[in-house]
Amino acid sequence: MTKELQLDHLRGVLVRLEETIIFGLIERAQFLRNPPVYELGGMGGALAAETLLEFMLHETERSHAKVRRYTSPDEHSFFDDLPDPILPALTYAENPLHTNRVNVNAQIMEMYVNELVPFICAGGDDANYGSCAVIDVNLLQALSKRIHYGMFIAESKYREESSVFDPLIRANDAAAIEAAITAAHVEVQLYERVSRKASAYGSELLTAGDGGIAPDKVRTIYERWIIPPCKQVEVAYLLQRLDD
Amino acid sequence: MTKELQLDHLRGVLVRLEETIIFGLIERAQFLRNPPVYELGGMGGALAAETLLEFMLHETERSHAKVRRYTSPDEHSFFDDLPDPILPALTYAENPLHTNRVNVNAQIMEMYVNELVPFICAGGDDANYGSCAVIDVNLLQALSKRIHYGMFIAESKYREESSVFDPLIRANDAAAIEAAITAAHVEVQLYERVSRKASAYGSELLTAGDGGIAPDKVRTIYERWIIPPCKQVEVAYLLQRLDD
Repeated sequence: MTKELQLDHLRGVLVRLEETIIFGLIERAQFLRNPPVYELGGMGGALAAETLLEFMLHETERSHAKVRRYTSPDEHSFFDDLPDPILPALTYAENPLHTNRVNVNAQIMEMYVNELVPFICAGGDDANYGSCAVIDVNLLQALSKRIHYGMFIAESKYREESSVFDPLIRANDAAAIEAAITAAHVEVQLYERVSRKASAYGSELLTAGDGGIAPDKVRTIYERWIIPPCKQVEVAYLLQRLDD
Repeated sequence: MTKELQLDHLRGVLVRLEETIIFGLIERAQFLRNPPVYELGGMGGALAAETLLEFMLHETERSHAKVRRYTSPDEHSFFDDLPDPILPALTYAENPLHTNRVNVNAQIMEMYVNELVPFICAGGDDANYGSCAVIDVNLLQALSKRIHYGMFIAESKYREESSVFDPLIRANDAAAIEAAITAAHVEVQLYERVSRKASAYGSELLTAGDGGIAPDKVRTIYERWIIPPCKQVEVAYLLQRLDD
């Protein structure tokens, strides 16, 4: 099994992404909801075709595409009209994933703007639009990476038990595949770990007396908006696993 | 005194930036030094005129300039050939700073590349150039903001005791100004706080078993590469405080 699929390596990546995500949530929560960041026309006449968040994310993805971010098998862009890399192609160690068309970024964006931001930020407008959009871009990129890592997790599980998965895939049985990939005790451990981390970070941050995010909220974010779409990615990937 | 200069507000901003900086250091330290990121020609024939870090920072500053980041009195760009904002100008509450020409970003970049990266990262090349450059950009922006906040600190101190500072400024006595702005016990508190924070974050992160950064190193970074240039900014600003 390639290094990218070894469970120790996968776990390391996912745990590391937890820090990035929790820290991003804490940073975003220090500002108010700031609806104009997410509304077409929120910036007055400028940016007519995109919200401020979309504009900043688009600009960031253009830059990152130039330095070949999206040639990496664990990166997925939100936009598909990006420039070609200006750096020479990297030779990646064998891409361990089966060819697939999985990309749930549109859903992640929708969930982020309409559910997650209202969940973590107090209502209102403090005019820190640029700061919020920059944090939003970092968070969306981390969430996308975390959620799409489901494909690596799924591939790893598939290789361990392909004889279990093959008939379910052939039967196109999404519910049975989801049951087969679910390990409830691992999820419970994860929820407890992120809650503990958020508590550790939050307590230090709260000594500053401004903002912060309750550990329970971080747990809820994982329960509602990270693990379910990650499992959805795992299932979608496995359903394509036997395609030519 | 305007809100921007009230010590409580300043302290809140600086403490918040500590989280961003410490977390950025932890993120960068997970990768090796990766010299090609910082070398002209490090990316082969591409990017002939800039290093990868300079290219990514330049791209980021172009995007952020478009959404008027650098019209804010607490933001300073590394590059000066940036596009005009495409958003309508914000009306900032009165800029509390005196007109000045202080910008130490060239020095921050030099210090970052030649001293800080080698200090926090193990030597070697793991090919994660893009990830490192993205983290570097975030860290440089946070360091620049933190260090240039010295101007707000200096203005606040000046307004409290202008009769002390005026003769020193007229005598162009940088050493005496530095002595007048220095509160050793406050610095000691700061060093202890960042060390404590790094310890809290580091301990949780280290449960992942990969990378991390020793709390002593974070303290040293503040002692060597953040507080001295911040005080230098305070002094440079005050020396221009009585100019027309």
